Amino acid sequence: MKRNIALLIEYDGSRYQGWQRLGSGQAVNTIQGRIEMVLTRLTGEPVQLIGSGRTDAGVHALGQVANFHTGSSLSCEEIQAGLHAYLPQDIGIRSVCEVPDRFHSRLNARCKTYQYHIGLSRYPHVFDRRYLWIPDGPLNLKSMQDIASLLVGTHDFKGFSSVKKTKKSTVRGLYSLDVDASDEKIILTFRGNGFLYNMVRILTGTIVNAGQGIYPLDQVQRVWDTGNREFAGITAPPQGLFLLSAEYENFHFSGKNS
Amino acid sequence: MKRNIALLIEYDGSRYQGWQRLGSGQAVNTIQGRIEMVLTRLTGEPVQLIGSGRTDAGVHALGQVANFHTGSSLSCEEIQAGLHAYLPQDIGIRSVCEVPDRFHSRLNARCKTYQYHIGLSRYPHVFDRRYLWIPDGPLNLKSMQDIASLLVGTHDFKGFSSVKKTKKSTVRGLYSLDVDASDEKIILTFRGNGFLYNMVRILTGTIVNAGQGIYPLDQVQRVWDTGNREFAGITAPPQGLFLLSAEYENFHFSGKNS
Repeated sequence: MKRNIALLIEYDGSRYQGWQRLGSGQAVNTIQGRIEMVLTRLTGEPVQLIGSGRTDAGVHALGQVANFHTGSSLSCEEIQAGLHAYLPQDIGIRSVCEVPDRFHSRLNARCKTYQYHIGLSRYPHVFDRRYLWIPDGPLNLKSMQDIASLLVGTHDFKGFSSVKKTKKSTVRGLYSLDVDASDEKIILTFRGNGFLYNMVRILTGTIVNAGQGIYPLDQVQRVWDTGNREFAGITAPPQGLFLLSAEYENFHFSGKNS
Repeated sequence: MKRNIALLIEYDGSRYQGWQRLGSGQAVNTIQGRIEMVLTRLTGEPVQLIGSGRTDAGVHALGQVANFHTGSSLSCEEIQAGLHAYLPQDIGIRSVCEVPDRFHSRLNARCKTYQYHIGLSRYPHVFDRRYLWIPDGPLNLKSMQDIASLLVGTHDFKGFSSVKKTKKSTVRGLYSLDVDASDEKIILTFRGNGFLYNMVRILTGTIVNAGQGIYPLDQVQRVWDTGNREFAGITAPPQGLFLLSAEYENFHFSGKNS
């Protein structure tokens, strides 16, 4: 019987075309494709990796979760060491563990957390520059917090996404949306049961547009009413976005990592 | 009369051959050379930049200080904006201000602070990897703290440096050397009135060797007695080292930055 192995993954998405392998070739540089390639080499059999969700090109992760089934008898420690040895430096494996056969990274995820980093200085720190968006300012924090409170809850988020026609539900639960400001940054933290294509980036762009005073709060209702993307704000660029974690009912990574 | 302008500079040293311009050509990629090139372009006159001290190839800075004399009438804001526009992304100017004519970044520095980051995990965070040294472990923290306390004070640090024969004094005052441990890192913080060539990296290597149990504490006395580099520990690699700040008697950057 095959074993089911889960990975806790972090990556700097700057030079990747996103999480999802596109096609079966290696022509496209994706996180999933890179990890599958190494796992296939390590286990000696083709590996298909299931991620908790896709991240767009240029988006980063501190706690992406993925799993794969394998007939290999490699220990979790051997898998982690092998991945560390063969993966590029900007993809890291924080933890590897065996999970019950039925565990599915995407279908079983009950909550995911994303963070978006907005820079407030025209001259951001050198070590931060690739991980920020600096919109035209100034930003009114109160307006950003006000619109954030309108977005929380269970809604049809289709208009705040790049989803085209679909038969699947576009209703999602956004459990919380925190807007935290320091001198140099505003950090948006999104917790929800699922996120549509580009949803975090469009919500971020809308919140920033509200902070800039160019998106009226009552327009949110028009997005709910019509599901029309055109009534939402802009799509924030990818480099400020981090997938922080995916949470599961009966499973936690131990955090062991050495 | 020429004005004297001071810069507060940060850089990711990964891809540079250190602070100091070597020769007058642009063949060698140094921080000083890059900034001088842009200042020469902005002011229309050759600019010579005086740094608080050199940093080696691959060493980073959060608070390098430098100054230059210029006949240009550009405002500090214009200089900062111009540098931001033309410098590469891994060199940033935190602050620009006019200082008294006699101010000299190197000669007037009364204290400098360096930090060295030692990684404790075989699998360090992706976002940290270029800014850490991961020595072979385990490291005994107590031994590291014990040897650090022997190194603090005013000593002839020649044996803990790569200085060859010199007529200049190699006596320096190391005011403090803190060894702080978290789960994932040990951070060494050095404060002193001056540092010799490679001194922080050799002190770090010696402290790490002590933590590994391969450098006996009583050997420190032999370095003081003989000034012989061979009795010190190894030279730690550059990528874990940061110049944090240079302090001056009568001058502080305002920290304004926008």
